[in-house]
Amino acid sequence: MPIQAGVVGFRGYSGAELVGILNRHAKTEPVLLEHRADAAASPGPRGIESPRQIPCTAADAKTGGVAVVFLATPPEVSMELSPRMLEAGIKVIDLSGAYRLGTCENYERWYKSGHTQPELLAEAVYGLPEFYRERIPESRLVANPGCYPTAANLAIRPLARSGAWDRGAGIICDAKSGTSGAGRKPSLKTAFCEVDENFSAYSILGHRHVPEVLQNCGLEEAEFSFTAHLLPLNRGILETVYFRSRSLKSAEELLEIYEAAYKDEPFVRLYDPGAAPDLRAVQHTNFCDIGVNFDAATGRGVVVAVIDNLVKGAAGQAAQNMNLLFGFDETEGLR
Amino acid sequence: MPIQAGVVGFRGYSGAELVGILNRHAKTEPVLLEHRADAAASPGPRGIESPRQIPCTAADAKTGGVAVVFLATPPEVSMELSPRMLEAGIKVIDLSGAYRLGTCENYERWYKSGHTQPELLAEAVYGLPEFYRERIPESRLVANPGCYPTAANLAIRPLARSGAWDRGAGIICDAKSGTSGAGRKPSLKTAFCEVDENFSAYSILGHRHVPEVLQNCGLEEAEFSFTAHLLPLNRGILETVYFRSRSLKSAEELLEIYEAAYKDEPFVRLYDPGAAPDLRAVQHTNFCDIGVNFDAATGRGVVVAVIDNLVKGAAGQAAQNMNLLFGFDETEGLR
Amino acid sequence: MPIQAGVVGFRGYSGAELVGILNRHAKTEPVLLEHRADAAASPGPRGIESPRQIPCTAADAKTGGVAVVFLATPPEVSMELSPRMLEAGIKVIDLSGAYRLGTCENYERWYKSGHTQPELLAEAVYGLPEFYRERIPESRLVANPGCYPTAANLAIRPLARSGAWDRGAGIICDAKSGTSGAGRKPSLKTAFCEVDENFSAYSILGHRHVPEVLQNCGLEEAEFSFTAHLLPLNRGILETVYFRSRSLKSAEELLEIYEAAYKDEPFVRLYDPGAAPDLRAVQHTNFCDIGVNFDAATGRGVVVAVIDNLVKGAAGQAAQNMNLLFGFDETEGLR
Amino acid sequence: MPIQAGVVGFRGYSGAELVGILNRHAKTEPVLLEHRADAAASPGPRGIESPRQIPCTAADAKTGGVAVVFLATPPEVSMELSPRMLEAGIKVIDLSGAYRLGTCENYERWYKSGHTQPELLAEAVYGLPEFYRERIPESRLVANPGCYPTAANLAIRPLARSGAWDRGAGIICDAKSGTSGAGRKPSLKTAFCEVDENFSAYSILGHRHVPEVLQNCGLEEAEFSFTAHLLPLNRGILETVYFRSRSLKSAEELLEIYEAAYKDEPFVRLYDPGAAPDLRAVQHTNFCDIGVNFDAATGRGVVVAVIDNLVKGAAGQAAQNMNLLFGFDETEGLR
Repeated sequence: MPIQAGVVGFRGYSGAELVGILNRHAKTEPVLLEHRADAAASPGPRGIESPRQIPCTAADAKTGGVAVVFLATPPEVSMELSPRMLEAGIKVIDLSGAYRLGTCENYERWYKSGHTQPELLAEAVYGLPEFYRERIPESRLVANPGCYPTAANLAIRPLARSGAWDRGAGIICDAKSGTSGAGRKPSLKTAFCEVDENFSAYSILGHRHVPEVLQNCGLEEAEFSFTAHLLPLNRGILETVYFRSRSLKSAEELLEIYEAAYKDEPFVRLYDPGAAPDLRAVQHTNFCDIGVNFDAATGRGVVVAVIDNLVKGAAGQAAQNMNLLFGFDETEGLR
Repeated sequence: MPIQAGVVGFRGYSGAELVGILNRHAKTEPVLLEHRADAAASPGPRGIESPRQIPCTAADAKTGGVAVVFLATPPEVSMELSPRMLEAGIKVIDLSGAYRLGTCENYERWYKSGHTQPELLAEAVYGLPEFYRERIPESRLVANPGCYPTAANLAIRPLARSGAWDRGAGIICDAKSGTSGAGRKPSLKTAFCEVDENFSAYSILGHRHVPEVLQNCGLEEAEFSFTAHLLPLNRGILETVYFRSRSLKSAEELLEIYEAAYKDEPFVRLYDPGAAPDLRAVQHTNFCDIGVNFDAATGRGVVVAVIDNLVKGAAGQAAQNMNLLFGFDETEGLR
Repeated sequence: MPIQAGVVGFRGYSGAELVGILNRHAKTEPVLLEHRADAAASPGPRGIESPRQIPCTAADAKTGGVAVVFLATPPEVSMELSPRMLEAGIKVIDLSGAYRLGTCENYERWYKSGHTQPELLAEAVYGLPEFYRERIPESRLVANPGCYPTAANLAIRPLARSGAWDRGAGIICDAKSGTSGAGRKPSLKTAFCEVDENFSAYSILGHRHVPEVLQNCGLEEAEFSFTAHLLPLNRGILETVYFRSRSLKSAEELLEIYEAAYKDEPFVRLYDPGAAPDLRAVQHTNFCDIGVNFDAATGRGVVVAVIDNLVKGAAGQAAQNMNLLFGFDETEGLR
Repeated sequence: MPIQAGVVGFRGYSGAELVGILNRHAKTEPVLLEHRADAAASPGPRGIESPRQIPCTAADAKTGGVAVVFLATPPEVSMELSPRMLEAGIKVIDLSGAYRLGTCENYERWYKSGHTQPELLAEAVYGLPEFYRERIPESRLVANPGCYPTAANLAIRPLARSGAWDRGAGIICDAKSGTSGAGRKPSLKTAFCEVDENFSAYSILGHRHVPEVLQNCGLEEAEFSFTAHLLPLNRGILETVYFRSRSLKSAEELLEIYEAAYKDEPFVRLYDPGAAPDLRAVQHTNFCDIGVNFDAATGRGVVVAVIDNLVKGAAGQAAQNMNLLFGFDETEGLR
């Protein structure tokens, strides 16, 4: 019998993507938890059944047999709902930034507002399965990673840990995201006529996703430059990572570092040196594709990583975390 | 009386843009030099007069009173046509890469083919008016800069010359261009369904535009990393430049370096620290807009530069060079 | 000395386009009339002068020497501001739907709200210069046409008046518009991720622009079907018009009807039968391009018309009306 | 054990879509039949297995155990390959226009070239399952419908057969398609910079897909106007159909006509009057969604139909036909 998987924020882009995954998943049934008024959906075809919808309270969720709740909500809402759901014995996978940064100080610095759940913050496990696969099954609160940090962490940590880079030169991550990463709430910044045929950098030297990379890759702030850019397309993130190395001998040696890190990973794919993935390679999938390049004569390296920001960068990874939490096949619903 | 300005390659994107500029220019009349069969234009409205069209020979151009010829052609064609035009006393502004790299060795390394006009290569002036305004009026052969190097040179040289950067860390330029930069010749790489909703890196660590930046900014190859990316939009280049500095004290100090370099420039505009230009700011204009950012605590700097690749990156800059060659107001036809 | 031309709604897409036109216009200076808080513009380059900005009152406008005010505002705001400006002796060109429909009954039916200025409604002249060039100079209140009706009226009236169509079959106008036609106010319907890679019909059989076509082309409601569609692009309208005719002998005969109607028009261009304009032909221009097709064997006709919805469909036409009102060259600022 | 399903033209957009469907299908394995040099694919991730690839001959296909061959090829190639495959006892589903038009005369008129397989043309079954579900299983050669006619036939036939329309006014179909409908072969017409931010009508009054609608809906040529338009997006067709009726009493009555026609169809979905589907509703699915509208006061009707041109308009429908041919569940691989 499938488990009941509740989704809060099911009309947002990540939430809707998640409902789709849960519908295809052999062992789950989505339940829509109606938290607050959202833009009503357009009328669809006649005779199509929607998933079950119930009020968004811990009591209703418990009565309704909900075993896990996904919070595709802003951090404030996640901090409000997560303790109630956990108290009712329901596991929580939070897609917001509420529980990703480890300490209240860190959260307050980057999110510019106070954290109301310090104990849960300390308890939460960072839900990047490629790094924390052992710890996730034992947790009851998973902090699903941000979209940019998912690609950045996967692209950078093998290199960062290898020691084969020049710390003084630092690591640069130039990140570009499709517009769905900004969410479904209407705003001038994401209006069609502002984004279409345009391209821009934003949050230069201060994006709130930066600390997720620092803490997972073991980098100092001075060692990491990150710039986010807005692409005139719907979904996908491409990150171009630059570093310098005096010790690496070839691109093949760099590739070996990544192969060692990801050889058994179902959702990380590597490219031969010289080839690089584009967004098309991963759109609508849970893959992170990585291409590595290195010029031994000058010591310059470039790593290109791509994900679908709504799948591996949000809903797909959340489902992957659920699979780990409940002992399902890690790829169920995601192939 | 206006001068006659010939355009070879007038059906390409840069060539067509140039014909438009020459039409608006108070002191020029465009003349189309038909060099070879190209995809015929779609039929337009009835009763619209086209510019005069003549065969693309030096004799016809001379007889036709052509004073300057723009070559919006591949390098091989530029090397074939330019000596003939020059011998006929016609000035040449070449939009290809044929005459940009100073030496045959350099050309052959980056363009993977031989150079047939070494003397002209030695004679040509690099047509970036902000750097070589003094030399351009005295030349008869101008090598119009590449689109990527125009933005990169303008974004990097003030910093590079200031010495206020950490040479060991190098300078990184992450460049993104609209698809018109790849020209009008049909290819799978620039087909709508391949580019639309997609984004990709290309020519990683080996783009042929790199040496134009090295030689104009005084950088060693090991000090400069450049990656080109293809944006799903028509026109515009945005380049994000990363560097490290132990000596700079603030973003304002960085801005002063750029203000000193560009204070009298009609086509370079600067932004206050924290603000950054997007493509919209410069599309269909000859401006290069530059925003500078610096975090003194960590020594990380980011410069963002944007141009329209068909205007300041090609046809507009070519017209600016013509204005200098003929003593016209430098901004004529470009405001 | 240039006249002072006030713009209300200067941050909207039509208003901003108008400010650009007035800046280029040899005989006008734009004045920004700040009516209410709007999303602030992003910071632009340093040292750029903005047009003069004053409060949006009739008194300020009069004191400021404003001779004409453009209202790029919703109908309610136009009905509020226009009487005050007119009383102060300032001419008004209204880009909203407030004064286009002739009678209060008609307005109330299509706009679902009451009309507060019935006398001005009766007084206003419909500002389609190709139809009402004689009347516009004598008026003080011009109702600038809607974007869809501009193309539809120009595409249909010559045919409708010719009598060479089968009234029983009616005239069908299938209209497609870029997203800027929906204005700059953020909404889910015009959010990037909703419009991008999507296409949809809306206001089927009930679009409020329909009566502007009926009254100017002399059609009965039963004789005219109109459907609006939203294109995933920024600017441009293409309308495909279908009719049947038993009397026409050839496409050339159809073309003659249009040539007779538009032979002296500076902003209407015709195509040879078989050719049809695309949006590119008119974007960023004040032209309406029209292609006519007819199959004599079956009596089926198709007319294709294109405009830029922000220029001929809004700001450009408004400037054209101003040129007529003040006796300027009709094309000034629009070439 | 799955059947071996050969695909010729597997690098084209329809062919690649088909390979994906066959990979997901529980009862088939795709086999790539290499017919001629095509643009090589970009290198993908390491370690990914491709489907089996064999030469494109009837002998190889037979030896390789291929039970059915899909021809995602131009008509000339389909006419060349289909007799050989059929002789080898392999069923053929042809995605080209070679076998859709019933008679050589009809083919030659619309395709402007001779038909070399008149007997097969007479034998082929038109593979629109909603109309010819009974006949398809008994055939060995299925003519898979064109993308435009799939939507047009489904949108029009219930109405056309009902008699509830005014024949004198005819039926108008204004069709808009994403660019993948034009295929993968590079051409200027489908280059990114030509399509992006543009929109155009083409093949006005003479599109070769017209006769597929006439013969399946029982319309005379004089009764049907069709215009194709090119949308700046990847995939999806939306068709807006106009008609007049003196006999219909309401939109609900119109809806009943469509409900009667499609009540048991797995891939046709209807909308309530007033609602209309957009492309998003059907992209990446095999559905045809239809919305109906009628204004009883004026007798004007509008039907909107959408499909994904690469799925229901090509590869999905081809797989649906294969399911019928082999007695599989009709929806296998398509949900």
